[in-house]
Amino acid sequence: MFQQITILGPGLLGASLAMAAKSSGLATRVHTWSRRAETRELSQQADWCDAVFDTAEAAVDGSELIIICTPVETIAPLLLRIVGHLKPEALITDVGSTKAQICRGIRGQLAANGPTFIGSHPMAGSERTGMAHARADLFQGACCLMTPEPEAPELAVTRLTAFWQALQMRIASVSPEQHDEIVAHISHLPHLLASALCGYLAQKDNNWANFAGGGLRDTSRIAAGDPELWQQIVLQNRHQILRAIAGFEHELDQLKNAVLSEDSAALTDHLARAKHYRDQL
Amino acid sequence: MFQQITILGPGLLGASLAMAAKSSGLATRVHTWSRRAETRELSQQADWCDAVFDTAEAAVDGSELIIICTPVETIAPLLLRIVGHLKPEALITDVGSTKAQICRGIRGQLAANGPTFIGSHPMAGSERTGMAHARADLFQGACCLMTPEPEAPELAVTRLTAFWQALQMRIASVSPEQHDEIVAHISHLPHLLASALCGYLAQKDNNWANFAGGGLRDTSRIAAGDPELWQQIVLQNRHQILRAIAGFEHELDQLKNAVLSEDSAALTDHLARAKHYRDQL
Repeated sequence: MFQQITILGPGLLGASLAMAAKSSGLATRVHTWSRRAETRELSQQADWCDAVFDTAEAAVDGSELIIICTPVETIAPLLLRIVGHLKPEALITDVGSTKAQICRGIRGQLAANGPTFIGSHPMAGSERTGMAHARADLFQGACCLMTPEPEAPELAVTRLTAFWQALQMRIASVSPEQHDEIVAHISHLPHLLASALCGYLAQKDNNWANFAGGGLRDTSRIAAGDPELWQQIVLQNRHQILRAIAGFEHELDQLKNAVLSEDSAALTDHLARAKHYRDQL
Repeated sequence: MFQQITILGPGLLGASLAMAAKSSGLATRVHTWSRRAETRELSQQADWCDAVFDTAEAAVDGSELIIICTPVETIAPLLLRIVGHLKPEALITDVGSTKAQICRGIRGQLAANGPTFIGSHPMAGSERTGMAHARADLFQGACCLMTPEPEAPELAVTRLTAFWQALQMRIASVSPEQHDEIVAHISHLPHLLASALCGYLAQKDNNWANFAGGGLRDTSRIAAGDPELWQQIVLQNRHQILRAIAGFEHELDQLKNAVLSEDSAALTDHLARAKHYRDQL
């Protein structure tokens, strides 16, 4: 499908992508670049990597598809740095957890007949980060949200859609703003609730953690995510996230009122509606 | 260890207990009673069950250990119903998720030289309920909170501790009130947060659920628990739960303030403290 693709920032997502692309024949050659020398050395030893470069500009040279897998704050600046080194027909995407701010940073900066950027957000991952946890089947069965701008060439949208589909992902196409509203609710809000829960329990008797069952472990798993990566995501999407938190707080108030008034029917009804939602996930 | 034990209410926990007790040689005979005729029929066919009875009174006759595995609202009333049918040396426990209200309901009702009740709460389970999901290894490695009253005979405490330990559980002994404070934080609060999250998301675009990754699925898993069972638990432990929710809300406010003021250092610090807590779970 592509003769040469470049992964910028081969961490958990980037390295998993490279593995998946190589093993399923979507890419003949994979080039990478990482900011850190250690990661570049690790890439050099990886069998999914054909060449490692010291600069992003060199790594993208001659590539047909460039996937930016670096922290969200760096995506737009990195793209603007490499775009002059690309073939006009090159396609650029990313795997960032936010889209509106990134797309605003890029809008109007790309020449009409030059490389195309289309945002992607594969809804796959883990609380773990880094190449060591990468695996070729990370994306299988998960959803990929794509955020093509209205002026994106149809051929580019088709090619990128086919790429994610070949990794066995389900695709949905939304605007960058819709994307951010959706993930504020289904990803960023759950993350912050898990973090607030853990932050609160950390202030309690240390021993209580030893008593916890699988419920707390599952509920709080995502709070183990990388603080620096998540800080960037949360601040980039803060408007939608604050709206989602407010909506959640309203719901929690209603649940609290049912408990306060010992209204067992209202409480059962609330828990049943929540169960109904969860059962369909 | 016991010639005959009785499981009252062999659902997920009760049937798992019976399986584990039989397979590890802790009980020679297992008697059961269920309120519903269908469950009695299922028990009759189960190889971990030696006899099924139509009444709780008949099921406990001659047993040395009685484990009440029914919904929390029914535990104290059921205990008071069966106690007159027990040998004086019989030991009664339960697996309920609350303890203070149950122990208050029983306190002063048992004769000093009659059967002993000691509360237990094995911190094991699942969002699934019912005998069909039972498994002998459900308790392995989990913690069991025991709530012996100060006047409980030492021999009874030792025997019950040994029983849970033989199922490879770790034991902690706390007062019923301490128990309720602990589980309000590490079990009931996470449950209500998951329920409020699902209740809120249920009001949003139905399609969003299709985009969700593993994060939302894990965070919300326990919201699939049985609404009626959880309504009883929440109302029995409402005072401690309301206090835990208030503490959580204070923490969420601080997190929100860091987002509102775009204070990336405070936000990273908060997320890092949460991660530190989660990493030790």
